[in-house]
Amino acid sequence: MNKFFNQAEDFVPEMLEGVFLANPDMLTYVPEFNIISRSDRPVKDKVSVIQGSGSGHEPAHIMAVGPGMLDAAVPGGVFAAPPMDSCYECIKRMNSPEGVLVLINNYQGDRMNWDMAVEMAQAEGITVKSFVIDDDVAVQDSSYTTGRRGVAGNFFVIKACGAAAEKGASLSELIELATKVNGQVRSMGVALSSCTPPAKDSPIFEISDGEMEVGVGIHGEPGRRRDSLKSADEILDEMFDAVAGDLPFKKGDRVALMINGLGGTPPSELYVLYRRAAQRCKEAGLTIARNYVGEYCTSLEMAGASLTLLRLDDELEKLLAAPAEIAVRVF
Amino acid sequence: MNKFFNQAEDFVPEMLEGVFLANPDMLTYVPEFNIISRSDRPVKDKVSVIQGSGSGHEPAHIMAVGPGMLDAAVPGGVFAAPPMDSCYECIKRMNSPEGVLVLINNYQGDRMNWDMAVEMAQAEGITVKSFVIDDDVAVQDSSYTTGRRGVAGNFFVIKACGAAAEKGASLSELIELATKVNGQVRSMGVALSSCTPPAKDSPIFEISDGEMEVGVGIHGEPGRRRDSLKSADEILDEMFDAVAGDLPFKKGDRVALMINGLGGTPPSELYVLYRRAAQRCKEAGLTIARNYVGEYCTSLEMAGASLTLLRLDDELEKLLAAPAEIAVRVF
Repeated sequence: MNKFFNQAEDFVPEMLEGVFLANPDMLTYVPEFNIISRSDRPVKDKVSVIQGSGSGHEPAHIMAVGPGMLDAAVPGGVFAAPPMDSCYECIKRMNSPEGVLVLINNYQGDRMNWDMAVEMAQAEGITVKSFVIDDDVAVQDSSYTTGRRGVAGNFFVIKACGAAAEKGASLSELIELATKVNGQVRSMGVALSSCTPPAKDSPIFEISDGEMEVGVGIHGEPGRRRDSLKSADEILDEMFDAVAGDLPFKKGDRVALMINGLGGTPPSELYVLYRRAAQRCKEAGLTIARNYVGEYCTSLEMAGASLTLLRLDDELEKLLAAPAEIAVRVF
Repeated sequence: MNKFFNQAEDFVPEMLEGVFLANPDMLTYVPEFNIISRSDRPVKDKVSVIQGSGSGHEPAHIMAVGPGMLDAAVPGGVFAAPPMDSCYECIKRMNSPEGVLVLINNYQGDRMNWDMAVEMAQAEGITVKSFVIDDDVAVQDSSYTTGRRGVAGNFFVIKACGAAAEKGASLSELIELATKVNGQVRSMGVALSSCTPPAKDSPIFEISDGEMEVGVGIHGEPGRRRDSLKSADEILDEMFDAVAGDLPFKKGDRVALMINGLGGTPPSELYVLYRRAAQRCKEAGLTIARNYVGEYCTSLEMAGASLTLLRLDDELEKLLAAPAEIAVRVF
């Protein structure tokens, strides 16, 4: 396992410390609870938007903390839900008179711990609601999920709700908005390699040279099928058909298109996939109003990619275009 | 070889088409010459800043085209210098009364082709000068290089010259600036895996589980030595000592610090490395004024990372902070 890490148990805390050290002015880091939050939050005039799920998906979600995005993130261990007490602590620290919105990706462990934390906080009089994201069209139920899994479409829910919260949307308006975004976003991914958590000696699943897992989950959960590796265009076509056909997206739709790298796939390959996705959108009469090519939700060092489509309207397009700042610097 | 591509010979053109399709308003794409340029260039009031080197290093350098960065990029095939006629064509297309600055990473093939292209353009009366970047401290000479190699430090030369050109710097001022940045920037990388160009059936070098190549080149050139894999902190320490000791960086220096992923290493691991780099800077009395953690100069899907330090002064800090826009969207 050729990775950069020290002791396996320190991998997540050291990564979080790195994120904090790279953004000392913007972020606050609470090591006891793995909480990364905006250092200027909570404030009284705005709903706090928070998320917590397993680590290993970076930049999701700890690097999505910042103005116009998340107010705080509380990751668990690698591919493990955050403990209930950390979730509860995060809600308490981000408590605002306007309320707290918890965005949860649909995995049983995450839902269970957040549900308990939300109930405890509510019992103390904190205004907090949660919303579950389930954008992955690959399979109906999965290893750690009842219903569909939440994957890279998560980014769009965060971005829209983060922007709307910044503009003063109420908690119920944000739930409505999250429902709308989640209802109009669809994703599917393909893995070309497995990945190895630092605490394990072996990959989380086996995949040979010349194979791919179609519809893989972001923790290596099985997808629709194992198949022999196809060309980039054929793979993209299958992802596109599955994603576009599910909503379904229709001729005339304006969309945001994301090609997301799963961690081990370089930008060059993602743009080869983007090319075909843009062709397919054109053929299908979909107008790409915004595009995203890069790493948004990874599975450690897994080689692979996912495609996400979000149907836009004026409201969503404005929210996606709104200013934001996160713990990742490009320039 | 589990990669996303169609035909090997189409890999670079299809990637370039993807970059163009993702940025149709900002970019112009000239398929005959692999040229990606700003669609609003050249203009009469500004030096054009261009670069061309092998593909496979994305986002360098085709995704560094945009306002405040490069005016045009002209990549060759994977790990291959751009042909002389493409370089020449790029100079001609970016010709401006203020002149053209060619930023070349130090590889023999790139230098030879650019030297010829620059001479041909000069013979036609075009004002064009070139500058060679050689920030890699790993080895003195290398497989494809006499002298030091140009690696991720390239980003800082582009950023500084791009910003200065935007503000009206003359060609000779830009050469002076490039000389200054290149003189104050140092890098070194470590590979944990090899990579496979689409046109090859096998990795460009062999490396086993539990091994690393210290001081690797961005085309897999041998570095200082092959060694058994060490902890993230030990690896970072060796990179830091090599880089910081070379200039040398001194107590009291303000620096820009970059942890660059080589393509197959996910953000989580890069931040584990950043943590240690920040600690080392603090111990050495270096103030990190700006930091960069992500993929800036990759080697296809190679697992690995490099560390770059740039000594700053007020001029450079302002130039790094100047607005820029490139063909990579984060939000």
